[in-house]
Amino acid sequence: MRIGVIGTGNVGRALAKAWAAAGHEVVLGSRDPEARKDLGLPVAEVREAAAGAEVVVNATPGADSVALLRAAGADVLDGKVLVDIAVGFTVEDDGFALTHTGVSLGEEIQRAFPAARVVKTLSTMDSSAMVAPDDLAEESTVFLSGDDPAAKAVTGTLLTDLGWSPASQLDLGGIETSRGQEHFALLFVAIMGALGTHTFNVRVVPQGKG
Amino acid sequence: MRIGVIGTGNVGRALAKAWAAAGHEVVLGSRDPEARKDLGLPVAEVREAAAGAEVVVNATPGADSVALLRAAGADVLDGKVLVDIAVGFTVEDDGFALTHTGVSLGEEIQRAFPAARVVKTLSTMDSSAMVAPDDLAEESTVFLSGDDPAAKAVTGTLLTDLGWSPASQLDLGGIETSRGQEHFALLFVAIMGALGTHTFNVRVVPQGKG
Repeated sequence: MRIGVIGTGNVGRALAKAWAAAGHEVVLGSRDPEARKDLGLPVAEVREAAAGAEVVVNATPGADSVALLRAAGADVLDGKVLVDIAVGFTVEDDGFALTHTGVSLGEEIQRAFPAARVVKTLSTMDSSAMVAPDDLAEESTVFLSGDDPAAKAVTGTLLTDLGWSPASQLDLGGIETSRGQEHFALLFVAIMGALGTHTFNVRVVPQGKG
Repeated sequence: MRIGVIGTGNVGRALAKAWAAAGHEVVLGSRDPEARKDLGLPVAEVREAAAGAEVVVNATPGADSVALLRAAGADVLDGKVLVDIAVGFTVEDDGFALTHTGVSLGEEIQRAFPAARVVKTLSTMDSSAMVAPDDLAEESTVFLSGDDPAAKAVTGTLLTDLGWSPASQLDLGGIETSRGQEHFALLFVAIMGALGTHTFNVRVVPQGKG
């Protein structure tokens, strides 16, 4: 599959490498591709990376995502699966705070690009866990939110390629459930402080003895 | 231990019964004790239930908690462990929303009652899981947030009495980490929708094979 990963931070680089290793054709999208030539993967302008892809992945800083994708041109996202990993936050004196409260970035992206098929996923964990779920002590849970079932199915296969078994993937429903994934960031930060590491995840434990 | 459980909804009743069964002396606090005489446990006015207790538990609707506790009289909370279970939310056309965003009810209660020793816990799950963690498929995690280590230790023993092993209890740090516990409510609601039940919990999965 041709995947355009927009964003060359920790998340974008980790996902791009993992999907390339799984046999996909991956291009990273950057606002400054020349400065990113040393990543070991093809890097293009954001618009070009999105235009050539079947699946576009938003791994840009959440507070800037809508503006950045809009600048690239909404037309290159039309009809495409748009996997949104981002969470918008600020770190103030008062602590960590979300930039999208009472709504979610996932919903805002879907509204801004109505012809894109947005799927929110992987936003409840650090990049180290995203691409190596088997390195955790036991199987944990990855969430999916989106309005297009076929787009969620495609995203599910890409998650499987990262090591997420179908049983570990929990479809939460429509894109409005992105709120849950994004607001988890506040608990993520607290757990990270308690454990002293960002490499962990949560597992949903259902009723009834296994 | 003498425990005053303020609030006679599902959460208050479930906790009061479980702690009474574990041998504690429990009094429920209600705004209308006469109407609540059939609960099988002593019920008193909020102020009286708090005044006679060593540990006060806030199991009132989160949006009303500060006003309700203030009406009971701040003086009866002075120096006491105040275990805060509540989450403030509204259900609008647009869906479930928190009433305390950018902050937490836990912090607001600590600010409103500075001489109380507030510990936020149990707020990430349904009452069915709070009092019967062993009925879930495997051990899951309960979080604690608070500024007073001794108050957190007392709360930990009360959690153990409900069936939460010390290993299942994760101390997140100061009362500001209540934000994480409370904001998890949005993910809780989404998972509840996906699983079709409110009886579940999450388990923190750390790095490294067991």
